[in-house]
Amino acid sequence: MSEYIEHDKTGSSAGLIEKKFYTFADQSDEMILENGTRFGPITLAYETCGTLNPDRSNVILILHALTGDSHMAGFYTKEDSKPGWWDIMVGPGKGIDTENFFVICSNIVGGCMGSTGPGSVNPKTGKPYGIDFPVITMGDMVRAQKALMDHLGIEKILSVIGGSLGGMQVLEWCVRYPRMVISAIPLATTTKHSALAIAFNEVARQAIMADPNWTGGNYYSGEKPDLGLAVARMIGHITYLSDESMRQKFGRRLQEKSDFSYDFSADFQVESYLRYQGTKFVERFDANSFLYITKAADYFDLERQYGDGSLVKAFSEVASKFLVVSFTSDWLYPTYQSKTMVKAMKKNGIDVSFCEIEAECGHDAFLLPNDRLTGLIRGFLEGVFNEVRA
Amino acid sequence: MSEYIEHDKTGSSAGLIEKKFYTFADQSDEMILENGTRFGPITLAYETCGTLNPDRSNVILILHALTGDSHMAGFYTKEDSKPGWWDIMVGPGKGIDTENFFVICSNIVGGCMGSTGPGSVNPKTGKPYGIDFPVITMGDMVRAQKALMDHLGIEKILSVIGGSLGGMQVLEWCVRYPRMVISAIPLATTTKHSALAIAFNEVARQAIMADPNWTGGNYYSGEKPDLGLAVARMIGHITYLSDESMRQKFGRRLQEKSDFSYDFSADFQVESYLRYQGTKFVERFDANSFLYITKAADYFDLERQYGDGSLVKAFSEVASKFLVVSFTSDWLYPTYQSKTMVKAMKKNGIDVSFCEIEAECGHDAFLLPNDRLTGLIRGFLEGVFNEVRA
Repeated sequence: MSEYIEHDKTGSSAGLIEKKFYTFADQSDEMILENGTRFGPITLAYETCGTLNPDRSNVILILHALTGDSHMAGFYTKEDSKPGWWDIMVGPGKGIDTENFFVICSNIVGGCMGSTGPGSVNPKTGKPYGIDFPVITMGDMVRAQKALMDHLGIEKILSVIGGSLGGMQVLEWCVRYPRMVISAIPLATTTKHSALAIAFNEVARQAIMADPNWTGGNYYSGEKPDLGLAVARMIGHITYLSDESMRQKFGRRLQEKSDFSYDFSADFQVESYLRYQGTKFVERFDANSFLYITKAADYFDLERQYGDGSLVKAFSEVASKFLVVSFTSDWLYPTYQSKTMVKAMKKNGIDVSFCEIEAECGHDAFLLPNDRLTGLIRGFLEGVFNEVRA
Repeated sequence: MSEYIEHDKTGSSAGLIEKKFYTFADQSDEMILENGTRFGPITLAYETCGTLNPDRSNVILILHALTGDSHMAGFYTKEDSKPGWWDIMVGPGKGIDTENFFVICSNIVGGCMGSTGPGSVNPKTGKPYGIDFPVITMGDMVRAQKALMDHLGIEKILSVIGGSLGGMQVLEWCVRYPRMVISAIPLATTTKHSALAIAFNEVARQAIMADPNWTGGNYYSGEKPDLGLAVARMIGHITYLSDESMRQKFGRRLQEKSDFSYDFSADFQVESYLRYQGTKFVERFDANSFLYITKAADYFDLERQYGDGSLVKAFSEVASKFLVVSFTSDWLYPTYQSKTMVKAMKKNGIDVSFCEIEAECGHDAFLLPNDRLTGLIRGFLEGVFNEVRA
């Protein structure tokens, strides 16, 4: 989710990795989406690291956050300056040890990182879908990932792991395919968006749609809504940090000057940081994908969809073992939301460990180096792997 | 600041009020601004309520928040549907009792509510200033208000009162004119913007400047940057509420439908609320004024300007008695910022009462009916008035 985490190439031990694609189709070459429409074919981008053991018992599925991709660790080529987004956690000897586990990271439908999304060409028209692309849900994303697992011949997943929007996919996996998911680690996430989280997403969407270059989502042959998307990204970045982390990171420090400019240039470092994040983001992300994925996040609501309004009921069929982690300074998905989740799990007798990690860096904490988090994940995975092999 | 507070005309007791204007000029018909430039003439809009007593000892100066105006209470005409923005607090028998006090509310330079601002005509060109308008500071705003006080023949102010940006003006008044301000009530405010507050303002400014209708601030003869300003306002509204207040006010309730729309219309009530606030705001506010006032708020930093980096030193000449009020759920200017202020005041031996009011409605709490706040203000004013007359 956050690109400002700078990785050193030498820090990666996952080595070279290959981006793969799987285009799946059911009987009719289409999937029936949760909104009721038929849609397809769907391509998913994914990557793997480590070796699948003969009894296929060492599969870990990693799911990424809003603007992430399938490139979780390692490098595509030796020339890459940056490894995958979770290289600090995934690799030989790391928290998710690829010497023990076969780790898959799947992209999402609706995205723009190699999977079918609004920027993909609609085979019926020969042009990009734009907003003719159907509004997809977390359930649609996960069902597409399930088709990928079927294709790979995987019947049981030792652990499904992800943070933020990735954590929502984790929860959707557990509820939808309870017999397939042995354990799960939802990090810095929620079972439903609060009004505050919806509000931030809505303002970000409005910023995109207010950009005249958005032109109703049909901009692929012309100028892109870069200014609107940059504002949307800046809003996102505010939610990923925290009051405390921004104070420590930027405070009121000025940008390369000793006095105020008395104009509308970036005086403060925090302004310059946000502008830079916005500008950099538009180079790699599609504005329409931002609309679709944030909408899926806003719609996500386990108790509404699976529990007739009861979260306890929504978890009633779940059979996975859980490690739930929240971070003290995360104000996008605050700890109380994880606690609500854990409580509903416990009422169903689910085996759940919960940990709130003291962190000042806000929601983004799950992406940053944290020995406590690494230790928790490593220990949890060893435990469930031992149980499976026992 | 917030317009969603609906007033009932029958609730107002302040009666009819008249908007007044004062255009001031020093010797050279200009004022030297803090950025070093000469600027003028400057007109300030202001309103008064109550009667100035013969010894001029009952003056209260109210200063408003970012998007407020001088219309603090009562109605302009009998046909008005809404009274002034602080009608719940200002009027006969209210917290700020206009039967005892002569209450002045002054607008700010840089605004768009009758005072000189970027939308005013530049006498040198015959056209609106646009961004040729100088970047003004909290100090400039307060110095203009001081000229208004001089014009009205007021040498002592019993109490200067304001919330949010109004609270910053209150603090600036106390530091800049220590012998003139007998007491002060800064509400829900800060002595300097945090990185988080700057971040929100910067993203809002970027949203405005990203609107192609902004055209470098020179839009007064054509289409206005309404879409950008609406997004800026939506961002503001998120900061004025709180996670808890949004949960109570909106939760995940849907807007006039029982299921998701599966498109990008407003599904949730919170989305609809924000869109409405954005749309309504552009009818009454100038985008350039939004830029200038938020910049002044970001620049505001008492310890930098008056204390060589020390807030204690910044307050060293202050002679006012204080009532400082914060609200538990205000995450724009959280209580710890008020506590820092109070601590620095106490180190100077300043007589300060501090109260953190339990409130779930976020930063906007100071604008909402609250018996505790009303009682605190009434009691404090009675006390200082008695001392003055003793």
